[in-house]
Amino acid sequence: MKKITLEEVASRILEHDRFLVLMHKSPDGDAVSCAYSLCIALSRMGKQARPLCTDPIPSKYAYITDHLTEQDFEPEYIVSVDLASVELFGEKLEEYKDKVDLCIDHHRINGGFAKEGYVDSEAAACAEIMAKLYKLMNVEIDTVLANTLFTGISTDTGCFKYTNTTPETHRLAAEMIEHGADAATINRIMFDTKSRAKLELERMVLASMGFYADGKVALVCITNQMMEDSGAEDDDTDGISNLPRQIQGVSVGISVREKTETAYKISLRSAGDVDVSEICALFGGGGHKGAAGCLIKGDLESVKEKIVSAAIQATEKIG
Amino acid sequence: MKKITLEEVASRILEHDRFLVLMHKSPDGDAVSCAYSLCIALSRMGKQARPLCTDPIPSKYAYITDHLTEQDFEPEYIVSVDLASVELFGEKLEEYKDKVDLCIDHHRINGGFAKEGYVDSEAAACAEIMAKLYKLMNVEIDTVLANTLFTGISTDTGCFKYTNTTPETHRLAAEMIEHGADAATINRIMFDTKSRAKLELERMVLASMGFYADGKVALVCITNQMMEDSGAEDDDTDGISNLPRQIQGVSVGISVREKTETAYKISLRSAGDVDVSEICALFGGGGHKGAAGCLIKGDLESVKEKIVSAAIQATEKIG
Repeated sequence: MKKITLEEVASRILEHDRFLVLMHKSPDGDAVSCAYSLCIALSRMGKQARPLCTDPIPSKYAYITDHLTEQDFEPEYIVSVDLASVELFGEKLEEYKDKVDLCIDHHRINGGFAKEGYVDSEAAACAEIMAKLYKLMNVEIDTVLANTLFTGISTDTGCFKYTNTTPETHRLAAEMIEHGADAATINRIMFDTKSRAKLELERMVLASMGFYADGKVALVCITNQMMEDSGAEDDDTDGISNLPRQIQGVSVGISVREKTETAYKISLRSAGDVDVSEICALFGGGGHKGAAGCLIKGDLESVKEKIVSAAIQATEKIG
Repeated sequence: MKKITLEEVASRILEHDRFLVLMHKSPDGDAVSCAYSLCIALSRMGKQARPLCTDPIPSKYAYITDHLTEQDFEPEYIVSVDLASVELFGEKLEEYKDKVDLCIDHHRINGGFAKEGYVDSEAAACAEIMAKLYKLMNVEIDTVLANTLFTGISTDTGCFKYTNTTPETHRLAAEMIEHGADAATINRIMFDTKSRAKLELERMVLASMGFYADGKVALVCITNQMMEDSGAEDDDTDGISNLPRQIQGVSVGISVREKTETAYKISLRSAGDVDVSEICALFGGGGHKGAAGCLIKGDLESVKEKIVSAAIQATEKIG
């Protein structure tokens, strides 16, 4: 992939007329923000543009997706946004794996699958890059675009809570609010709204929380039975792996998600000095110091026992 | 109270030498932020300053309070910060009720108890006003002051989530991060940390959640028995009144907190068009459209029945 500047990205886009904009599977707020803001901006310039995602866009983003009219045309320029690698394309995007003309992304690990690309891994959200791009393209940011861009900035930073949040993130949020973004409503939809099924799942998960090593290690389980009993969707498990770490005194938070009766997906979160990627490496997994994952085979009890004792050992090493 | 400009506030402070800085009872992040940042800034200028609060400062603010050395001196100028009315003084501040020289606040309802004052109700946090004041006073914002001011800005806006958040709020947050504030750590302490007692209380409260009117009304109870069984403190009930409203489809969220066996404090939250202050007015209470409260006497079942049927009627009126 040839690296180009954001100014060159702007020229490339202005030179073309009929766009297909690719998004990653299981689209999140940033993916929706980037793809839809680009298509909406291009439509307003009299160009044709259509987003493509292998999965349906969740209905909570209707306040964004409602503002783009479905268009029927033959694309001549293919852009990917917030898309780190071809593994995240999914079935419907399969045919475009070696056909992406331009990639705009903020993932350090971007796979470089496109012909040309701009990757800024300092940007907390890819929507931050898009906001800067629209300035270079002289796109007028109205309320619709402000809401759309604010969504990406806010969701990818956990409402300005995560370590990726920079002064630039806050300044762009300020600009979007000035351009009319209804920040409080968007944040309520994104962060303070849950389905009754998710509530039910959380009740069950909290009831399953166990503490070990004087409360330094905490574990929750999400079994298929809980998913069925609560009626929760995969989406509803979002954020649940963070729950154990939130408890005072917990150094390592563990969540165990049943895949099959003999295979469990483990997510670890560290609240301090323990490097949880080292724990996951023992089981062939990986990640960062603060968040990592692995897959362990066996029945639930033996899987719990294995990961808990590895976590206890790691906390004891720190002291 | 004579209204003065922020420039005049700066001169008044620079003219004096020995300060007592008053805080409201049950101090929150903004109160701690304002009082401690002022005392720390004044100490660095060679002046003497001491904060005073009727309640102890919660230990989670140690990263702020640790930076102020206890000083023994006779104050000659009394300043109140983030303090809306004398009702919030509490016992230890009783003697200063008619002795406040200068009031700096952001509450629209400020009681005007001081000789002179500056009130800016557009400021999301009183810490925003302090940040501007320090600029006028040429205070250098180092990491300690940046952490202290960021805490007020972030806590009073629910981590930039509430409707009071303005572009100015985000821009000040950006500046504090540039001055070295460890925003992610502060936000984790303030928003993503709970005691095991609070976890236990939440489990019980979630188990008590009931739905009415096709899920448009949801209610949770916090009984004294739950408080005792969980070992939770009053502080731990923070945020619990928001839980019912967070469920999809809920228009009115109700929380019922036992005061005595025959008196219950009701908090209502609206997720949309229902004006919950009107519901509370029926029981002699009040508040805003989105959040209101009242006290209802009777046993738990009859209290629940009264508030639920009033809430159902209000949602039916909206349709």
